[in-house]
Amino acid sequence: MKVIVVGASGTIGQAIAKELGKNHEIIRAGRNGLDVTVDITSAQSIKKMYEQTGKIDAVISATGGAHFGSVSELTPELNDIAIESKLKGQINLVLLGMDYVNDGGSFTLTTGIMMDDPVPQGASAAMANGGVKAFVKSAAIEMPRGIRINSVSPNVLEESLDKYGEFFPGFVAVPASRVALAYKKSVDGAQTGQNYEVY
Amino acid sequence: MKVIVVGASGTIGQAIAKELGKNHEIIRAGRNGLDVTVDITSAQSIKKMYEQTGKIDAVISATGGAHFGSVSELTPELNDIAIESKLKGQINLVLLGMDYVNDGGSFTLTTGIMMDDPVPQGASAAMANGGVKAFVKSAAIEMPRGIRINSVSPNVLEESLDKYGEFFPGFVAVPASRVALAYKKSVDGAQTGQNYEVY
Ligand SMILES: NC(=O)c1ccc[n+]([C@@H]2O[C@H](COP(=O)([O-])OP(=O)(O)OC[C@H]3O[C@@H](n4cnc5c(N)ncnc54)[C@H](OP(=O)(O)O)[C@@H]3O)[C@@H](O)[C@H]2O)c1
Ligand SMILES: NC(=O)c1ccc[n+]([C@@H]2O[C@H](COP(=O)([O-])OP(=O)(O)OC[C@H]3O[C@@H](n4cnc5c(N)ncnc54)[C@H](OP(=O)(O)O)[C@@H]3O)[C@@H](O)[C@H]2O)c1
Repeated sequence: MKVIVVGASGTIGQAIAKELGKNHEIIRAGRNGLDVTVDITSAQSIKKMYEQTGKIDAVISATGGAHFGSVSELTPELNDIAIESKLKGQINLVLLGMDYVNDGGSFTLTTGIMMDDPVPQGASAAMANGGVKAFVKSAAIEMPRGIRINSVSPNVLEESLDKYGEFFPGFVAVPASRVALAYKKSVDGAQTGQNYEVY
Repeated sequence: MKVIVVGASGTIGQAIAKELGKNHEIIRAGRNGLDVTVDITSAQSIKKMYEQTGKIDAVISATGGAHFGSVSELTPELNDIAIESKLKGQINLVLLGMDYVNDGGSFTLTTGIMMDDPVPQGASAAMANGGVKAFVKSAAIEMPRGIRINSVSPNVLEESLDKYGEFFPGFVAVPASRVALAYKKSVDGAQTGQNYEVY
């Protein structure tokens, strides 16, 4: 299968490319993507990416930014970062990619544990995660041509503890290699409308 | 208590104003609000509303628009309707209202059953509902000054069956008067971070 991984250079994306690369052709995408460039906060850029890749079998999004900050200091403008990137960016990969995905193909988006197990400063990211999860569950029942859609909700990654560990006291970090398997389940499996919790 | 009800003229809003009006002072808000006007899709308009109401004890949002349409025909632009109104509009009522709510006051937003029990054409509304629910759960753990935040997730209303009934085959409609009690539980109770399902 031909699989686009948006965010392929990231902590999760690298692990996905390694795991899925065993039996699939990976197209590595990102703002500085090795195979194709895309900025998911721009619908125009997403359209251009699909024009370049042509037909594919699976689209994986392992990206999405959000502002971390206390809800007392969150402004509509700061909240827009998550709206534009983690929420709309990921959903637009689906809406604009629909016609490029082959029959029976799949989309896999990324959410995160913060929507289920909240941490201070995480309200904006949690909002985006919850929006993506609900979109996936609802869109799944009416995707055309047997196209499936799932999301993966990782706990904090072992590989990210240096960067984010202080935000997640008492959380049991998971290795990126295990998170990557959830994306494999989504792409190579047959389920749809799921949010795979890797907690 | 002084309670703003945004969407007070709507099917749910009217029932809330009737129930909460028994023991609270209700400020009826909406684009054509009887007491104060507000368009939740505009941060400027929300700010103006709070300047006019001054300090309040509770803010209820019983409003939020979304485009209904199949996911195959959903465009980024059509999806923006739910983003701007049901999602950002409701969340901005919180972000911009925080300083106007008295200590121990509350926010109550509205989600809906479609995020849990999806129906065709509902993906964009489900997305907004899921985003609001996750925001509420996460924001609740760090609201300042004892301010609480909850959401209410109604099933389709008996009073709305003429308008929306065909979208909800087999759903057990609930009366607006029962839905209104969930908002009362949020305002007069002591819980926070909840999404009250009236299913
Ligand atoms: N790491 C964790 O512990 C963890 C846990 C739960 C959930 N998550 C979620 O998983 C996702 C990926 O996390 P990560 O830690 O792997 O991220 P990361 O290491 O920071 O990598 C981000 C990746 O996304 C790309 N990217 C960033 N902005 C982009 C944009 N606007 N358009 C297209 N590509 C963009 C980056 O490449 P370029 O710079 O070339 O664009 C990079 O490949 C995020 O949504 C994160 O919230 C992470
Ligand atoms: N009815 C149901 O069966 C049902 C079930 C589950 C969830 N819900 C959700 O509950 C909410 C209210 O539903 P409803 O059926 O009661 O709606 P409705 O009868 O259509 O009333 C909408 C209310 O919101 C106000 N409004 C509309 N756009 C606004 C804006 N941009 N800014 C401020 N106020 C605005 C309207 O007044 P103005 O025209 O004066 O602005 C009106 O008071 C919606 O989010 C809906 O999705 C409804």
